[in-house]
Amino acid sequence: MTPPDIQRAVFSDFEPSGADFSFKLIANDRQARRGRVTTAHGTVETPAFMPVGTAGTVKAMLPGSVAQTGAEIVLGNTYHLMLRPGAERVAELGGLHRFMNWPGPILTDSGGYQVMSLAALRKITEDGVRFRSHVDGSYHTLTPESSMDIQRMLDSDITMAFDECTPFPADHPTAEKSMEMSMRWAARSRDAFTNRKGYGLFGIVQGSVYEDLRHRSIQALTDIGFEGYAVGGLAVGEGQELMFSTLDFTTPAMPKEKPRYLMGVGKPDDIVGAVKRGIDMFDCVLPTRSGRNAQAFTRRGTVNLKNARHAADSRPLDEECPCPACRDYSRAYLHHLFKAQEMLGPMLLSWHNVAYYQQLMAGIRDAIEDGRFDDFEAAFHEERAGGDIPAL
Amino acid sequence: MTPPDIQRAVFSDFEPSGADFSFKLIANDRQARRGRVTTAHGTVETPAFMPVGTAGTVKAMLPGSVAQTGAEIVLGNTYHLMLRPGAERVAELGGLHRFMNWPGPILTDSGGYQVMSLAALRKITEDGVRFRSHVDGSYHTLTPESSMDIQRMLDSDITMAFDECTPFPADHPTAEKSMEMSMRWAARSRDAFTNRKGYGLFGIVQGSVYEDLRHRSIQALTDIGFEGYAVGGLAVGEGQELMFSTLDFTTPAMPKEKPRYLMGVGKPDDIVGAVKRGIDMFDCVLPTRSGRNAQAFTRRGTVNLKNARHAADSRPLDEECPCPACRDYSRAYLHHLFKAQEMLGPMLLSWHNVAYYQQLMAGIRDAIEDGRFDDFEAAFHEERAGGDIPAL
Repeated sequence: MTPPDIQRAVFSDFEPSGADFSFKLIANDRQARRGRVTTAHGTVETPAFMPVGTAGTVKAMLPGSVAQTGAEIVLGNTYHLMLRPGAERVAELGGLHRFMNWPGPILTDSGGYQVMSLAALRKITEDGVRFRSHVDGSYHTLTPESSMDIQRMLDSDITMAFDECTPFPADHPTAEKSMEMSMRWAARSRDAFTNRKGYGLFGIVQGSVYEDLRHRSIQALTDIGFEGYAVGGLAVGEGQELMFSTLDFTTPAMPKEKPRYLMGVGKPDDIVGAVKRGIDMFDCVLPTRSGRNAQAFTRRGTVNLKNARHAADSRPLDEECPCPACRDYSRAYLHHLFKAQEMLGPMLLSWHNVAYYQQLMAGIRDAIEDGRFDDFEAAFHEERAGGDIPAL
Repeated sequence: MTPPDIQRAVFSDFEPSGADFSFKLIANDRQARRGRVTTAHGTVETPAFMPVGTAGTVKAMLPGSVAQTGAEIVLGNTYHLMLRPGAERVAELGGLHRFMNWPGPILTDSGGYQVMSLAALRKITEDGVRFRSHVDGSYHTLTPESSMDIQRMLDSDITMAFDECTPFPADHPTAEKSMEMSMRWAARSRDAFTNRKGYGLFGIVQGSVYEDLRHRSIQALTDIGFEGYAVGGLAVGEGQELMFSTLDFTTPAMPKEKPRYLMGVGKPDDIVGAVKRGIDMFDCVLPTRSGRNAQAFTRRGTVNLKNARHAADSRPLDEECPCPACRDYSRAYLHHLFKAQEMLGPMLLSWHNVAYYQQLMAGIRDAIEDGRFDDFEAAFHEERAGGDIPAL
């Protein structure tokens, strides 16, 4: 871990570097890939995990702390930011990087997923989605064109095509109809996207758990052409087995020379299994959301710090973790913070969880580069199987 | 400001230094004093403001951030800590410094004030106070002896004598009776206090707004002998005018060679006026509590960041403040964080407010040392009278 904390970014740090958007494949270990994404605001070593900064902040963390964990890219949510403070406002204030003081790469989702899960009174047509804001009840419309426009105003390095996240379960005709509309929206997204040096647009593969649909979706997207390809419609309740079996027939059909992003995933073992199946990028609210709820991710599995067994435990959460929560505090103190509902509890545990996810990704990257990903995976599962240290 | 953030304290940093408890008077400017308190865990330049770490954390701040603002000592609350996690527990875990990762000096109050303001079913007798916990309804007793015992277990560098905070208003006979009991409790506190190298016990002057009672209280306390003297029973609703007039006849009668601490004060102008009247130490929840509520303290007065006039304001809260909230973010972003109820809002604004208080104290100390406290006070009031910068 590097010692500094707060990023001391100066104005010029928020400007595009002038580099082209690119993906470099550095190493393969069977399906697993070690790569590097270059964007207008810096590079991202893959496989990478992107902490989620929904409303322009990775919850309960300073951007400098996020960077200190090793994270190189964060995700912003188009749906949240378009409603509050508004994309025009963010643009007036110099873009999302400057607004949230994150000089590194930012990926924004298209708003399609959140509008379905959070907004009220949504109505989907071929044109797009009309909905009422969960913030103030105002009416809004998201279309491929407006989503591209919003993401351009946010200045995200990686823009996601506007799609419909097919609900799960969906029968074949439903999944097919949904996927086909998403492919038409993908083409409209590509047309509406303003090409800028260092900025990329990712298409999103849909098709639920059906091999033929996933393959048709990939074909449709590669015909259009994108700077990266995401797998959408997973991590929506189908379970790990079905997620992995879907990836088993999906990723091999995806372009090898472009980054692959599994949206909204996931738990540490989901990530390890998806990397094994050829995924390069991940995002999930789990590390921060769990951190706010006293749930810690460690190499030994999950630990609930509200549990009374920690109340007198002078040991760190994980003696090998260099994050402040583990380095400077006892389990007893973390337990106390959550019992007393002190904000420092969520602050420290969000930091730890994001740090753990980044340590996991760093271990994954090293293992792929060294051609020992299978050993890494076995050790990962073995350490977790041992469980947390016994109570004192 | 120094660049590092998280204190990288090692175990030995939490051990007493071996220095004697002392107070050195460095300079006077009429009544105003510039001094230095030396404790087992380090020195404190006075006049000093102590951020409040009620339950073992300065709310929404990492200890390293607190230190980075220039704060050298924090306050812990005996009442909160005895109930949760319990003084024995803190002692088992190595004391409050280690528990909360604050290697510097700590002052703990006696519990007397909080037990009256927070606990249920309290019953005061000559022995002490019996009460029910606001946390779990359990019964507890605080006496001079148990308060000293608890503060010893917490390992606080500065222990406060157990007293009754006389309610305001109180008529002369009531204030007299209350003060006299506090003086008997002060003697019992002194007897029960375990002398340790570098640790000090402060007596608390009571007597409400009555000159004769305050003078009798000071006489009683100096007859006992303490390492420092606090002024209690103020900042309880009497208003600034009555606080200042009480100080006008109180501080001149207090020992010159010992530190003087005005408990629970206060707003920036309260502090400036009290320093002028000879006070050396302060504590108050205002900077952190206000910070959590979007209220910022600045050299131009208070600013409510929830106000819509900040929504599109790209300027920093205070362009001269070196804290992260001012250095790295716009008013618009801070406004957004509070509107979106993001934890980073309280985190940044607590940091700013504590930083502002420390800048204020540093300015006060410099002014006293240079013999220009009157000029400082005039400039302080003039800058505030100008008000916040006009909206864009």
